[in-house]
Amino acid sequence: MQKTSVKIFYLTDANLPFKNTTFWVDAIFGTGLNKAVEKNIADLIHQVNSTRTPVISIDLPSGLFADKHTPTNVAVIHASTTLTFQRLKRSMLYAENAHRIGEVKVLDIGLDEHYMESLPTTQELVDRSLINKILKPRKRFSHKGNFGHALLIGGSYGKAGAIILSAKACVKSGAGLTTVHTVKTTGATLQSAIPEAMLSTCEGDKVCDLPDLAPYNAIAAGPGLGINEQTSSMLKLLLQKAKKTLVLDADALNIISQNKNLIDNLPENTILTPHKKEFERLFGTFENDFQRNDFQIAASVKHKIIIVLKGAYTSISTPEGKCFFNTTGNAGLAKGGSGDTLTGIITALLAQGLNATDAAIAAVYIHGLAADCAVKKIHPYSLTASDVTEFLSEAFIQTV
Amino acid sequence: MQKTSVKIFYLTDANLPFKNTTFWVDAIFGTGLNKAVEKNIADLIHQVNSTRTPVISIDLPSGLFADKHTPTNVAVIHASTTLTFQRLKRSMLYAENAHRIGEVKVLDIGLDEHYMESLPTTQELVDRSLINKILKPRKRFSHKGNFGHALLIGGSYGKAGAIILSAKACVKSGAGLTTVHTVKTTGATLQSAIPEAMLSTCEGDKVCDLPDLAPYNAIAAGPGLGINEQTSSMLKLLLQKAKKTLVLDADALNIISQNKNLIDNLPENTILTPHKKEFERLFGTFENDFQRNDFQIAASVKHKIIIVLKGAYTSISTPEGKCFFNTTGNAGLAKGGSGDTLTGIITALLAQGLNATDAAIAAVYIHGLAADCAVKKIHPYSLTASDVTEFLSEAFIQTV
Amino acid sequence: MQKTSVKIFYLTDANLPFKNTTFWVDAIFGTGLNKAVEKNIADLIHQVNSTRTPVISIDLPSGLFADKHTPTNVAVIHASTTLTFQRLKRSMLYAENAHRIGEVKVLDIGLDEHYMESLPTTQELVDRSLINKILKPRKRFSHKGNFGHALLIGGSYGKAGAIILSAKACVKSGAGLTTVHTVKTTGATLQSAIPEAMLSTCEGDKVCDLPDLAPYNAIAAGPGLGINEQTSSMLKLLLQKAKKTLVLDADALNIISQNKNLIDNLPENTILTPHKKEFERLFGTFENDFQRNDFQIAASVKHKIIIVLKGAYTSISTPEGKCFFNTTGNAGLAKGGSGDTLTGIITALLAQGLNATDAAIAAVYIHGLAADCAVKKIHPYSLTASDVTEFLSEAFIQTV
Amino acid sequence: MQKTSVKIFYLTDANLPFKNTTFWVDAIFGTGLNKAVEKNIADLIHQVNSTRTPVISIDLPSGLFADKHTPTNVAVIHASTTLTFQRLKRSMLYAENAHRIGEVKVLDIGLDEHYMESLPTTQELVDRSLINKILKPRKRFSHKGNFGHALLIGGSYGKAGAIILSAKACVKSGAGLTTVHTVKTTGATLQSAIPEAMLSTCEGDKVCDLPDLAPYNAIAAGPGLGINEQTSSMLKLLLQKAKKTLVLDADALNIISQNKNLIDNLPENTILTPHKKEFERLFGTFENDFQRNDFQIAASVKHKIIIVLKGAYTSISTPEGKCFFNTTGNAGLAKGGSGDTLTGIITALLAQGLNATDAAIAAVYIHGLAADCAVKKIHPYSLTASDVTEFLSEAFIQTV
Repeated sequence: MQKTSVKIFYLTDANLPFKNTTFWVDAIFGTGLNKAVEKNIADLIHQVNSTRTPVISIDLPSGLFADKHTPTNVAVIHASTTLTFQRLKRSMLYAENAHRIGEVKVLDIGLDEHYMESLPTTQELVDRSLINKILKPRKRFSHKGNFGHALLIGGSYGKAGAIILSAKACVKSGAGLTTVHTVKTTGATLQSAIPEAMLSTCEGDKVCDLPDLAPYNAIAAGPGLGINEQTSSMLKLLLQKAKKTLVLDADALNIISQNKNLIDNLPENTILTPHKKEFERLFGTFENDFQRNDFQIAASVKHKIIIVLKGAYTSISTPEGKCFFNTTGNAGLAKGGSGDTLTGIITALLAQGLNATDAAIAAVYIHGLAADCAVKKIHPYSLTASDVTEFLSEAFIQTV
Repeated sequence: MQKTSVKIFYLTDANLPFKNTTFWVDAIFGTGLNKAVEKNIADLIHQVNSTRTPVISIDLPSGLFADKHTPTNVAVIHASTTLTFQRLKRSMLYAENAHRIGEVKVLDIGLDEHYMESLPTTQELVDRSLINKILKPRKRFSHKGNFGHALLIGGSYGKAGAIILSAKACVKSGAGLTTVHTVKTTGATLQSAIPEAMLSTCEGDKVCDLPDLAPYNAIAAGPGLGINEQTSSMLKLLLQKAKKTLVLDADALNIISQNKNLIDNLPENTILTPHKKEFERLFGTFENDFQRNDFQIAASVKHKIIIVLKGAYTSISTPEGKCFFNTTGNAGLAKGGSGDTLTGIITALLAQGLNATDAAIAAVYIHGLAADCAVKKIHPYSLTASDVTEFLSEAFIQTV
Repeated sequence: MQKTSVKIFYLTDANLPFKNTTFWVDAIFGTGLNKAVEKNIADLIHQVNSTRTPVISIDLPSGLFADKHTPTNVAVIHASTTLTFQRLKRSMLYAENAHRIGEVKVLDIGLDEHYMESLPTTQELVDRSLINKILKPRKRFSHKGNFGHALLIGGSYGKAGAIILSAKACVKSGAGLTTVHTVKTTGATLQSAIPEAMLSTCEGDKVCDLPDLAPYNAIAAGPGLGINEQTSSMLKLLLQKAKKTLVLDADALNIISQNKNLIDNLPENTILTPHKKEFERLFGTFENDFQRNDFQIAASVKHKIIIVLKGAYTSISTPEGKCFFNTTGNAGLAKGGSGDTLTGIITALLAQGLNATDAAIAAVYIHGLAADCAVKKIHPYSLTASDVTEFLSEAFIQTV
Repeated sequence: MQKTSVKIFYLTDANLPFKNTTFWVDAIFGTGLNKAVEKNIADLIHQVNSTRTPVISIDLPSGLFADKHTPTNVAVIHASTTLTFQRLKRSMLYAENAHRIGEVKVLDIGLDEHYMESLPTTQELVDRSLINKILKPRKRFSHKGNFGHALLIGGSYGKAGAIILSAKACVKSGAGLTTVHTVKTTGATLQSAIPEAMLSTCEGDKVCDLPDLAPYNAIAAGPGLGINEQTSSMLKLLLQKAKKTLVLDADALNIISQNKNLIDNLPENTILTPHKKEFERLFGTFENDFQRNDFQIAASVKHKIIIVLKGAYTSISTPEGKCFFNTTGNAGLAKGGSGDTLTGIITALLAQGLNATDAAIAAVYIHGLAADCAVKKIHPYSLTASDVTEFLSEAFIQTV
């Protein structure tokens, strides 16, 4: 490692996470070249990593490619902390680099934001100013009819919890009316948990039929739906009949995974919200996170759908080939129920008249922001999806 | 626009909603003449509107009639904000003018309130001092018998949420005892949600019979009632047998809409609480909001009933031909469940011995005030009917 | 009214409830003679009352008897406020005098409390120091077995709410274990509402049998019990078999009212908790509150039971012929559910080993104090039994 | 009592619990010799105890053995308060000495903590620094799969409360997913109470079968399980088939007590969580607390299991023959439901990948700490298991 390109020295800085500890500073600028470092630098990198001493990387960990997949055999500093400039780099958004970038802090070094925003890009970080343009304050003379009617389909027998979480989030995200189509046992539980939601029930243990879809402005299916034959048939019918924007989550995605031809029959602007495993069940496995993300965007364009790939930086790909990366949220969301809540929020925003892309982007941001507000009071270990729902109000206060 | 009657200048005032923005001030006094402006003024108005620059109107937007319907072909400034004096004008109370008046602020210019209140009027804005006269503090030696027994009828199978919301609001608005007459499945859900409410159940899936009405001081029917034949029969029987003041809401109104002759059989001082659509199903459509309001008052007089027409400025018309306009509430109430909550409050106040007009006026005010208190903590997007019920206490603290 | 015995003048005192208002001060000392005032004083009293001007009475309203019933034909000042000295007088504790004493404030005039407490009396006001002697802090090495096992019997079909309220209050008043014996439908509702309570169920719609009573340290019956034949039989069996202190409330009292001979078979130290109407159904009507209270004490002595006669100043009479008057509580308690909550508290304290008298006194005080704490935050109109239960903790903090 | 070894004098110190009271100071140093005091000292001790005057003991109450059982016929001061140095002594950890040591306060006299911790010991007090090493913060790129899937088995008909409490605690202690295997009636109640938990149901009234165990990272059985033949068979099957760490509590322990041979078939590192009575049903009665604790450790070694013996200082014995004593918790936990909550926390920590010993130690500490946080706001009389669960977040904030 040359003296000019690498500055290594010791610090003892109480403000950083390594109190009273010796650590490395890794400051090879210019690693964003997306190619492997030279042999002598690689050796030095392996040597530093082998010391297991904390490393603070400046800009990017040395060796890491900025915009594309870094193969595992390429030498990359394993930073404890990365101090990057102005914006997150694309390679910091993927889990595959989590062990290389450590905790990331973005430093404002005064670059011209207007200039940066004017650059043509198909990839965008979602921030508060974007959400603020999407979500509008409510007006005095508005009535419940102005905020639409959301329909949530799910909660087969024994799976009431998921649809309850969706319904709570939908009601607390501004839908004028929220109706849940579910089985009777779930209906009873639901009305106790969230009396503001209305009920449409079907016979039997599975959600096996559809109500008249005409009154609804947005329709979601999936939470606690189950994946048996009857619900599959119901879902197929829904895909045929729905004229309003659909949100498909959880078991709705699993049914599609088992009936791949359905992907080609999704109504335009349908929103799919898979986590990584559900995405792979739908679209196959991928060699790395970059490849998966590229495929996600291609799939959105091909099928004219919005795909919300849930994770640390949830990516939202659009039929126009754009991809938005969410910047809110925390590890307290890594728990059962988070996805159900997100589905409720998206559906509520759709019902209120947002277009599918805007609804998906804003819902993902608000969901993460609510969790960020929540963890100021509730430890991530203890955070529940219901807690996140309770903090939706705070998130709307900060953005609308 | 003449120099003497119109003053136009530019301001940049950080305290107004148009920070760092150029806007118009529209100050044609005397437009309250209820007739269309002259051609040259009309042209100027169209020109101003076409600039899409924000306009602040003083007193009333130029061109707007103060006390009667302004036809759509009349030229009217589309104000962003209207600064009016001392009192809201009648034309500001109707949704049809929402896009013309923008956000309204009432300025106190020191007119003599006593004089203004002494003027004979059949139309009155409801304010805190009026409510303060209606609602009395509770006395130490009072017992639950002093605060009456409210009966709420509703919640057919699958519609438990609505009657739960009514029951919670009734219990939290001071009724000595609250009983809900409903179907068995709803009963189970209800007792978990609000154990303070007592239960009277009927067989089957619909609320199809009546309990002995003798013990009750006030009776409401409608939330989650359903509109099938059995419930219709039950409602007809209720109208015949009830000797206490009735509150009819939601499906009770829908049943009456389908059996118009029932309107003539309503017991004296029955309170109907339709929103605009329910009102139209009951009484037909109207050319404009003024006409609808006039008809509302006429219907109250004719049928000797109180009509609570729910909206931004809920209007309460009485058998004496008076009409009260509520001044509390906000767009957070524009959601399913708000009406059920209001029904519970009215019934609780009736049970406590208020006359029907006072109960309706005070309940509407308290309901809106609770929502106003709530939105100081909870964003209107996230506000639920249950939240409003939680803030009833705060509303009573401010008024009783 | 003679100048020496009556001082009348005008005040305008912002600290009193009659701001900027002229009012009378009524200061006839020595009216505590328990006999009617003379004719000329009586005339003056009628004259004052007829003015409808507020009156502040010092010590006692002129004409009111201090320690016995004042007949309605005796002239008594109708005070708005009574400023009394050091202690409430007996006549202030009864509802029959509510319209005569108005709002009562007790002024400390420095009398020797030790001397007053040393006076022999069978009637005692319950205050914090008395409760502080009864309730003990919990010790570190204690385990749930140290705090006893409470059994609550009630909640027949459709009456789940009452027993839920009792169970919540019992769990939150320190019982080591709480078991509810009820019907199956109620059981399901109960476990959702208060999972800390255990369940013992019986078949059918009515609570018609008894569990093995051996494990329980205290047993209550009544809330939501119903009064049909089956529950009557169950109650009779309970009276025969119970070896632990019983608390009988609500429908248990109504069953006894219908089977008066049961009164003679009550186990020693059974606690009955009637409100005024239930008391009358048990023991007949009375000419006035003094007579009722005297009878209450006599009945306690005769049947060797504790009677808790609920009202503004709940009176607790004991087998020894003493009577305690509670001083906590407010009109927010005048609502369905208050009694159920009280039953839960008494049973919890009994289970923890208090004797019946102490448990009754302390529970009534704590119940009222919790309500007093609650109305600092929640308006009496909106206060619910569940709210009171939430404030039990605060009441224990102030007394234990 | 010799002048040199015993210092007795009178104090009146407002800062101690005996305001304005004369009390003894008992300062015989060196009683930690684990043998009975001499006759003349014993006489003096009896004399002091007979005065019933409060006694403050320094170090240990005179006569009390420090590290072994003190027979009841040995003279020991009954201290009101014991001021001990640096660490709790073993004899202070057992309930059998509760009446001898009174309230214990540990004084820091500056002994070298590093030296003390370096001493070889098989008995250790659990403190915050130990827990801080066990529990790790969550990382940004983690997802629900990283935090494991917990399975809770229990809640037969009529016993829903127990498993609800476990499930709530499990969800709020960081498990990625929580599934409850229970009967259908309990399932319905559970999903209303904690929608984040998933459901696996079996037919009938008892939990009589097992789901596929493959997806689960940790499994608990016991809360509300019941002890009939069917659940016994289920439990035996579980012991055979479980490949993940098991937590056995409540009725699971009772079933084992009735089938003692099962103790020999427990999978390695199974965690048993008996309270004293359950321990005795499992392992027989003991002459004293020391003997019980010694047996507990021996049983852990013999059966290669972790035993959590619940009480004031819960002891956690390990297969390696170590014993950890918990230092958090208070008498507010002495109530039904506490154990169910603890079971949920242990299972959540196991699911997240902790080894059995660490999970047991950390869960017991966190559970007690949550209760300690809770009693700063909620009186121990009113504290419920649900309250403790609400304070789990606060406990994690203080330790992770």
